[in-house]
Amino acid sequence: MPAESTAFSWIDGQRRARECAGLVRTLRPRPAESALLDLAGNDYLGLTRHPEVVAGAAEAARRWGGGATGSRLVTGTTELHTRLEQELAEFCGTESALVLSSGYAANLAAVTALAPHGSLIVSDAANHASLIDGCRLARGTTLVAPHADPESVRKALDTHEGPAVVVSDTVFSVDGDRAPLAELAAACRASGAGLLVDDAHGLGVLGDGGRGAVHAAGLAGAPDVVATVTLSKSLGSQGGAVLGPAPVIEHLVNAARTFIFDTGLAPAAAGAALAALRVLRREPERAARAREVAAALHHLLTDEGLSAVRPDAAVVSVRAPSPEQAVRWAADCRAAGLFVGCFRPPSVPDGVSRLRLTARADLGERELAEAVRVIVRTAPDGAFTAGR
Amino acid sequence: MPAESTAFSWIDGQRRARECAGLVRTLRPRPAESALLDLAGNDYLGLTRHPEVVAGAAEAARRWGGGATGSRLVTGTTELHTRLEQELAEFCGTESALVLSSGYAANLAAVTALAPHGSLIVSDAANHASLIDGCRLARGTTLVAPHADPESVRKALDTHEGPAVVVSDTVFSVDGDRAPLAELAAACRASGAGLLVDDAHGLGVLGDGGRGAVHAAGLAGAPDVVATVTLSKSLGSQGGAVLGPAPVIEHLVNAARTFIFDTGLAPAAAGAALAALRVLRREPERAARAREVAAALHHLLTDEGLSAVRPDAAVVSVRAPSPEQAVRWAADCRAAGLFVGCFRPPSVPDGVSRLRLTARADLGERELAEAVRVIVRTAPDGAFTAGR
Ligand SMILES: Cc1ncc(COP(=O)(O)O)c(C=O)c1O
Ligand SMILES: Cc1ncc(COP(=O)(O)O)c(C=O)c1O
Repeated sequence: MPAESTAFSWIDGQRRARECAGLVRTLRPRPAESALLDLAGNDYLGLTRHPEVVAGAAEAARRWGGGATGSRLVTGTTELHTRLEQELAEFCGTESALVLSSGYAANLAAVTALAPHGSLIVSDAANHASLIDGCRLARGTTLVAPHADPESVRKALDTHEGPAVVVSDTVFSVDGDRAPLAELAAACRASGAGLLVDDAHGLGVLGDGGRGAVHAAGLAGAPDVVATVTLSKSLGSQGGAVLGPAPVIEHLVNAARTFIFDTGLAPAAAGAALAALRVLRREPERAARAREVAAALHHLLTDEGLSAVRPDAAVVSVRAPSPEQAVRWAADCRAAGLFVGCFRPPSVPDGVSRLRLTARADLGERELAEAVRVIVRTAPDGAFTAGR
Repeated sequence: MPAESTAFSWIDGQRRARECAGLVRTLRPRPAESALLDLAGNDYLGLTRHPEVVAGAAEAARRWGGGATGSRLVTGTTELHTRLEQELAEFCGTESALVLSSGYAANLAAVTALAPHGSLIVSDAANHASLIDGCRLARGTTLVAPHADPESVRKALDTHEGPAVVVSDTVFSVDGDRAPLAELAAACRASGAGLLVDDAHGLGVLGDGGRGAVHAAGLAGAPDVVATVTLSKSLGSQGGAVLGPAPVIEHLVNAARTFIFDTGLAPAAAGAALAALRVLRREPERAARAREVAAALHHLLTDEGLSAVRPDAAVVSVRAPSPEQAVRWAADCRAAGLFVGCFRPPSVPDGVSRLRLTARADLGERELAEAVRVIVRTAPDGAFTAGR
């Protein structure tokens, strides 16, 4: 039956194009114990294997079962979810919180619920895919503003009457640079717009004791600011949350499709995140340490002549001369025992390929020195700036 | 600062409208142990608290940590994810599988990746929200076909040249009725279109030993058929998967944004789902028992004169005379110790409110009789058909 085998044959052309461009992505399963030094994951505080976090997951599964069993509006809300929401809100200094099954789902929920028909969304050009998909799903009209450019945001808002929301990462996932939150908030307030920021890479790293970029900017608890966070990075688990004024959270409960029509976060993930949050509250120095490690990494690499962006949080981005050399560089690091991220087109907004290193609070001096040694030794010639 | 407090004030109008319409949704956290008899959750096989499932979650958290730590393309793929994918694919009779963080994410991934620019999507009018959002995010053009109407699908496909995909739930989540899979597949094959079905409510319930609706229809492993499943219903955990030919799965790895830019499923959720799958394989009679319980529930309720749709799987839908009476009915059930679902506008495609009951394989005869007794006793007069 020829028709049978041709339904998805258009995929072949895309595969060949990827192969020619050297852009094939493959899954490389890792074992439970690995000798690799990990500078690729987002476990910024080194909490994902913390005994209390693991115990939090196990105990929650034992008490509540393997799954939430339904939408949070039916059987899927447990007292554990409520506790996590209360402690997240309290920690971040907001009135309310709503936990969803992922950070991705949280962003889809927040953007779609806060940008109704007739509204304007002003979205930073370097925003995370989940915010972009949120804009595409929302009923409002999206205007993409140049990266980290509050003046453009202000102009865009001036063109619009009616509800408007400015959407931005707080710390951008590729380069690790920070959004100009104070200026964005000022632009929003000047025109009565809401500010929705994704603090995925800020929570646990920035602000007093890791309370995040919104708290650091003095915007926590503001009636016109909503933040999303993920439970999958600093909190070492899975899930996401929307943080904001109680009426906004109540609105999401009633209007956000990725909340209403999705099974609640698994109890084990809620339990792990809650345990991680409690460790962080008890050991606030972990946040500062993650920033310190990032600064040290940046310092050591630029001292060697590599071109790295000064880190605002725990992500250190190092420029590579080309996509092919970035891939080879990352592979050479791996062969030498170091796991680093590698971003290249089409996953980078500006076409510049780079290694992406994440600083972890639990990295020691010796590991740091070893990481730098490997990165420098495996670097392609073109990666060094003239200053070398 | 007046501007500050008005950014989200448009929400108030929506809240008031919901209140007037009696459509406010609220979260009701449940305790770990409840005396309520649960006919509202989607734990069809009674596995979410199975000792092996709970141990699977706990052991996975212990071995792999509380979270996957990154995108599955970076640090987030473990050997546990691979094993789950292999066993899911083998069980369902497909070549390959890809695990995502939720069933919602799996549907967004599958629809967007299989409906490129210039393609046609033919989507059943009663499809789940996640499929609908997938259609809205996809680059292809969506045509909504009347519910369960293969002839309309055939006509829609005839209007189009180029890639096309027909998208449908296998078991519809509100009424629990089954899609005409054989006829849809025939329509697809006649025009070379692909068939993408969401087997969220079929896996674990339909087909030989719970292999799902696609397997039951003899379509498992077909080169032109792709299925999505969730790990959050019969498998008692959290997560989703896409099942299909290896080239399609490889395409998703490279093209699906909710896969590429999302943290991998938490190890505990993968471990719980894997354990549940193994229990189901060892005890295939659980699937038949869930169907039996549903049939018994339907039989007992219609015998009493209530209007229930004959169940094709494990969902039994009972008509209520109005949204208000549906809500009151569900509340009265709850007060009498029975937890049932309540669907009403705008969550129902046809404007008809209903109670939604889920049959669980682990419900005994006495629980069944008790559930029926409560539902009948609390039913509003208008819920009984003339035949009473
Ligand atoms: C900035 C940002 N927002 C949202 C997400 C999505 O969160 P999650 O992976 O928890 O779904 C990510 C990465 O995964 C991210 O980097
Ligand atoms: C038909 C259907 N598809 C997909 C989903 C989403 O799956 P999940 O809740 O695992 O994200 C659901 C319900 O939650 C569903 O009923």
